[in-house]
Amino acid sequence: MSRYLVKGISELVTCAGGKKRGRAMGDAGIVRDGAFLVEDGIIRAVGERSELEGRFPGLPAVDCGGKLVTPGYVDSHTHLVFGGERSSEFVRRLRGESYMSIMEGGGGIAATVAATRAASEEELAESALPYLSEMLSMGVTTCEVKSGYGLDTQTELKQLRAVARLNRMQPIELIPTFLGAHAVPAGEDADRYIDDCIAESLPAAAESGLAAFADIFCEKGVFSIEQSERYLRRAADLGFRLKVHADEMYPLGGAGLAVHAGAVSADHLLRVREEDIAALAASETVATVLPLTAFCLAEPYAPARRLIDGGAALAVGSDFNPGSCCTYDLPLSVALCCIHMHMSIEETLTALTVNGAAACAREDSVGSIEAGKQADFLVYSCSQKEFLPYRTGANLVRRVYKKGELVYG
Amino acid sequence: MSRYLVKGISELVTCAGGKKRGRAMGDAGIVRDGAFLVEDGIIRAVGERSELEGRFPGLPAVDCGGKLVTPGYVDSHTHLVFGGERSSEFVRRLRGESYMSIMEGGGGIAATVAATRAASEEELAESALPYLSEMLSMGVTTCEVKSGYGLDTQTELKQLRAVARLNRMQPIELIPTFLGAHAVPAGEDADRYIDDCIAESLPAAAESGLAAFADIFCEKGVFSIEQSERYLRRAADLGFRLKVHADEMYPLGGAGLAVHAGAVSADHLLRVREEDIAALAASETVATVLPLTAFCLAEPYAPARRLIDGGAALAVGSDFNPGSCCTYDLPLSVALCCIHMHMSIEETLTALTVNGAAACAREDSVGSIEAGKQADFLVYSCSQKEFLPYRTGANLVRRVYKKGELVYG
Repeated sequence: MSRYLVKGISELVTCAGGKKRGRAMGDAGIVRDGAFLVEDGIIRAVGERSELEGRFPGLPAVDCGGKLVTPGYVDSHTHLVFGGERSSEFVRRLRGESYMSIMEGGGGIAATVAATRAASEEELAESALPYLSEMLSMGVTTCEVKSGYGLDTQTELKQLRAVARLNRMQPIELIPTFLGAHAVPAGEDADRYIDDCIAESLPAAAESGLAAFADIFCEKGVFSIEQSERYLRRAADLGFRLKVHADEMYPLGGAGLAVHAGAVSADHLLRVREEDIAALAASETVATVLPLTAFCLAEPYAPARRLIDGGAALAVGSDFNPGSCCTYDLPLSVALCCIHMHMSIEETLTALTVNGAAACAREDSVGSIEAGKQADFLVYSCSQKEFLPYRTGANLVRRVYKKGELVYG
Repeated sequence: MSRYLVKGISELVTCAGGKKRGRAMGDAGIVRDGAFLVEDGIIRAVGERSELEGRFPGLPAVDCGGKLVTPGYVDSHTHLVFGGERSSEFVRRLRGESYMSIMEGGGGIAATVAATRAASEEELAESALPYLSEMLSMGVTTCEVKSGYGLDTQTELKQLRAVARLNRMQPIELIPTFLGAHAVPAGEDADRYIDDCIAESLPAAAESGLAAFADIFCEKGVFSIEQSERYLRRAADLGFRLKVHADEMYPLGGAGLAVHAGAVSADHLLRVREEDIAALAASETVATVLPLTAFCLAEPYAPARRLIDGGAALAVGSDFNPGSCCTYDLPLSVALCCIHMHMSIEETLTALTVNGAAACAREDSVGSIEAGKQADFLVYSCSQKEFLPYRTGANLVRRVYKKGELVYG
């Protein structure tokens, strides 16, 4: 069935109209009793059912049974590919043990780096596969994936090859990011490590063609603004689009740096400075918040309301990783956005779809239900979007379509 | 297979030893490489695998594949049977609209009362069935269910008959509670309504034999301490065991009343008074906290740490209901307990199993894996309990057994 009409939709949330900033995020492009035409995996027309049935008579139909339909979700920030697990460390931290003391015992990111170095490319891909399968069942159809658990050229490239392999193994489209500057390797100096990235791993990653983006963990005690700037400048020269881990633990000004460097997104933003909210709003850089991490660390949430009201384009990612946030729970993300970050459900859906796509520079191909885009869409068990926060934490996605094909449900 | 050995258990969390209070909740009765004998749906022996294999050679086995096993969960506080839904109201409340203004527009509990009165017993049961099926998939094997959306004798009894019907339709064991005093019916006087309950609905519910417990919403602006005391005294005289909705919005002293009345549990406790923590600790009354409701309302959590450290026996329930908390998400409950209420995973598992059973006066038959109890147990996808908070929000239950039978997975 290469050409068909999708109908039987009580509420069609299109998220059409491109990346949305500020209060415009509240317009999720809703069509009552909507329908759309899919041809060879691409959406060709969108409108009211009666209109589309008139324009395209006699076509086969995908019947959504009178339910809610939205675009597939774009998770624009994950660390999906890693070796090992750190469940015991997570519980030790909950008991009050400091991250520093855990690090001194060989835990923390060093544990994941060791396990990732020890794993083969195949093993890394295999262990990520069940996660992707669950993410798909929650409606993720596009997902960014970072390296960053090698901290040496060879392992970073192995992680990126695992992402490429995973892209061929399952339906979620994966967008790879090189995150060589995720942490300072044990015993090394941050400045020297940035020199090494600039001289070796960044060029090697560029030459491999395995990553579209380069990213850095700009944070007090990790990489400074100056170090991050050097790294990002080199990455841009090598042809990477840029992302920045910014202002998670300390208001260092990473978001401002991301804007200055022309990054596609600045991520985390728990402690974003007031002047950097204005800078984000005046730029093309997407402000990506990661509420699951704040929830898992019992940290205050990023100021989503101030970012939106200030005029920024906000996206929501999961930050799935083996340390601070070993979850990609989208229904929980929706609950956190709507109940605890005071975003409307329309803003939340915009953040999870078209703005997530923009945070991966993919807003031309995914993230909304409009003519010319991939037919990535979700059919729910409920009839209206209000059920998503109301049925708090429940996954109401029942069918997932990627490029027009049913891939889940 | 009426007699078999359960083995292949990396970590067996037995929760044995009866209702636990205070710091003793941290002892979840863990056996490494444990095993247990099941006969005709009852657990007959528990110990290390090697010991049990020696004592009971040649028996058929249920192999848990080297995974975590715990008792089935007891959700000791739900409002599972109701008509209609209130998703739009939930979103209006998130937008800042007051509950009072929603009530004035015909929303709030009045909307559920109207829909519940309009539904047949069959319809009420049918609409609850999918919820029970999802609860089962998360590991609930015993569940308390309250009436309270009739506010007249006829509808309250219809709700209780729907519970009895549901008990025959699916594997979760349901424990019915009469909650005639859930709210003051529109246009009525609280004192007069309590008189009516005492004269009519409580005796009718007692005569019907449909409910084991009687419960009341003791809250400022709903039913006072004095009104609650009258209602509970009559309920006790009629043979009911007692439960009390206590100190949710205002520190009225409901928990102290529950202790004084000899109630099996005092529930909610967000604003429990310091002296009532001491009273709970010195009593047999279980302190039941409902973290999902606090999460959904963005209210502060009940002081679980102070309750436990003060010596109370703490249980965790869902409070699933169509208004404030339309969720029974157990993995989210675990995350809230461990990350946001500072309970250990051992305390959390105790609260969800044996103490939940105690909150329903069922600790003699369910809630732990020990000789003489029903063989209600869960097999997970992970090998140790630390994964439950670590994989935040994820349902890791893969198989559910009720009375020795595989009922899910």
